Amino acid sequence: IQSKLPGVGTTIFSVMSKLAAEHNAINLSQGFPDYACDPKLVELVNKAMKDGFNQYAPMPGNIFLKETIAEKVEKLYNVKYNPETEITVTAGGTQAIFTALAAIINAGDEVIIFEPAYDSYAPTVKLLGGLVKTYELAPPSYGIDWDMVKKLFTAKTRMIILNTPQNPTGSILSEDDMKSLIKLISGTDILILSDEVYEHLIYDEQKHQSVMLYPELRQRSFIVASFGKLLHATGWKLGYCLAPEKLTKEFRKVHQFNVFSVNSPMQQAIAEYIKQPKNYTGLASFFQQKRDYFRDLLAGSRFKLLPCNGSYFQCASYSDISDEKDTDFSMHLIKEFGVATIPVSAFYQKSTDHKIIRFCFAKENSTLALAAEKLKNV
Amino acid sequence: IQSKLPGVGTTIFSVMSKLAAEHNAINLSQGFPDYACDPKLVELVNKAMKDGFNQYAPMPGNIFLKETIAEKVEKLYNVKYNPETEITVTAGGTQAIFTALAAIINAGDEVIIFEPAYDSYAPTVKLLGGLVKTYELAPPSYGIDWDMVKKLFTAKTRMIILNTPQNPTGSILSEDDMKSLIKLISGTDILILSDEVYEHLIYDEQKHQSVMLYPELRQRSFIVASFGKLLHATGWKLGYCLAPEKLTKEFRKVHQFNVFSVNSPMQQAIAEYIKQPKNYTGLASFFQQKRDYFRDLLAGSRFKLLPCNGSYFQCASYSDISDEKDTDFSMHLIKEFGVATIPVSAFYQKSTDHKIIRFCFAKENSTLALAAEKLKNV
Ligand SMILES: CSCCC(=O)C(=O)O
Ligand SMILES: CSCCC(=O)C(=O)O
Repeated sequence: IQSKLPGVGTTIFSVMSKLAAEHNAINLSQGFPDYACDPKLVELVNKAMKDGFNQYAPMPGNIFLKETIAEKVEKLYNVKYNPETEITVTAGGTQAIFTALAAIINAGDEVIIFEPAYDSYAPTVKLLGGLVKTYELAPPSYGIDWDMVKKLFTAKTRMIILNTPQNPTGSILSEDDMKSLIKLISGTDILILSDEVYEHLIYDEQKHQSVMLYPELRQRSFIVASFGKLLHATGWKLGYCLAPEKLTKEFRKVHQFNVFSVNSPMQQAIAEYIKQPKNYTGLASFFQQKRDYFRDLLAGSRFKLLPCNGSYFQCASYSDISDEKDTDFSMHLIKEFGVATIPVSAFYQKSTDHKIIRFCFAKENSTLALAAEKLKNV
Repeated sequence: IQSKLPGVGTTIFSVMSKLAAEHNAINLSQGFPDYACDPKLVELVNKAMKDGFNQYAPMPGNIFLKETIAEKVEKLYNVKYNPETEITVTAGGTQAIFTALAAIINAGDEVIIFEPAYDSYAPTVKLLGGLVKTYELAPPSYGIDWDMVKKLFTAKTRMIILNTPQNPTGSILSEDDMKSLIKLISGTDILILSDEVYEHLIYDEQKHQSVMLYPELRQRSFIVASFGKLLHATGWKLGYCLAPEKLTKEFRKVHQFNVFSVNSPMQQAIAEYIKQPKNYTGLASFFQQKRDYFRDLLAGSRFKLLPCNGSYFQCASYSDISDEKDTDFSMHLIKEFGVATIPVSAFYQKSTDHKIIRFCFAKENSTLALAAEKLKNV
């Protein structure tokens, strides 16, 4: 059998979580909380099942949930999306990303991504016959020189994938970035896929620069959001995609044949839950406290911490500790020190190695403290 | 925006369920039960959530669930699939179909389908740049002349999509069919995608002809199964794909970037539930009773019932009643008689119209009785 994705192995997240379990290591690798989600939310799922929400939800999503998403989006960003024609509920952020790409990318189309990047972008584009054009972000700031991005444009450029707050670097786009981007794409028909699954995890009073805040961007953007991140329930696999009607129409054509519809009782429960904004406000300060706590703990270690402006990931350089490749170094951390992390080279197609690893700090403070104890010995 | 699926609208299932709701009609269109799933199963989901199964499941599926699937499959078909390397849990049967096709089909590859067919097959193949070669099944038996299938083979033939029991016709493949198929493909490297989501819904003591019963077929097959159908919970969107290791490897490469993993608490609950075979045996007799009940009720009507050997669908010809196209006729049934059905032309790419509609009988007997009352007036 000839593989359509010959270079692709198992995602780093699976590999590391499996290794963490095997070596009984503290798992700061794959991004997910180690604490319970709100019991009220669990109770609402239970109620939805008992109320009979056990058969197919409408293909684009539970109507009440789509309306509640529209309300939430309007409240937070002062932008209106039409639940009927512009919001689609998905089986998580990753499925929304895959579906948007599958709906748009034709063989030979070029897609610009910023590396390090979430590891689904490049293989998905390639699976669809597209070509990946890569802009490499440089540590420690991982900032973007938009004039250099422009150099990647060709007649074939079909899409740019943005991700703010960014996984794995924790960097965020600024208002200036957005303005440069608007200038760059004006007069083109380049589309945007904006992965904003960490929209709420943004620190130090900074403002999330959603593409939806800019009409010139919004009209050409698929925006991907995640309930897993919002509700500390990554295993429920629910998210959504916002896009103007003409894009949503294409998105749904693929969505209906990819998964058709998504988990019905959980959609109903999430709608009731997020109807109360108090159930999700405070997320930024909750995670900022964890970021600060973890950074303070590691201050006494030999790791050099990179900035973290958003997401629940903290990157650190170990160049003062070891010359090893980051994949080897992270194996040592698991086996000898009992802490699982992600080598940041996994987020590059070419395995570019800057001797940086990624920690997930969406963990109990006690977990973070225990991990830091071990990391201080490195 | 140029559509990748220009001919595609909203799936017939969404359209009809929406119309049924709008016209307050009895909904025998989209395939799903109108009765509750087992409260024990709901309780198990509740328990799994309380036990903390709320973060990412392993990418290929909950380990306990995969093992339980392997046990179930071995018990029913006396065939061993390795949970580690040959079973992948999916967000429903449709996602498994999409993912298998995305993993295999390259631009220009040809895929043979039998029409009428579940409406995701053809557009998914086309989305991937493949070509659909269609064998048209003829009512009332919808049987296959395999010599004619052979005429569709070319050097580009990559896959055949089977579906037994078949949606929408309720026909099933026989042992003779399987033997003819084996002869047909021997010496080729044509793969099989076998949609067996109705495997348990097979009547009159007939035996489900899974491709897994035939080593020559099994070794080249993706087999798709559905927990929605097994557990009367279509809205939970859980299913799985069985395939030999070399095929599963390619399947998972796409799966991990399409949805990554699927609903964690429900996987855990389903594993505990189906661990007890008594929780799913009796499905065939349960639905056979409904089939017989519904057929008896309609015996007094002007509809001519086609055979139904499997699935929870009953097809009927209305050629004695009307000359209308089946799409028009089914609109009349909704608006004037208050019963929603699916026009079978929706299952053909060319809207071939044999004046046949499809009823779903996975409904309370009282629903079926009420529908039959109305249908007798037609
Ligand atoms: C979908 S698994 C990966 C979770 C995640 O986003 C990460 O760890 O980067
Ligand atoms: C996935 S929605 C369609 C359900 C079904 O299989 C049918 O009604 O044919």
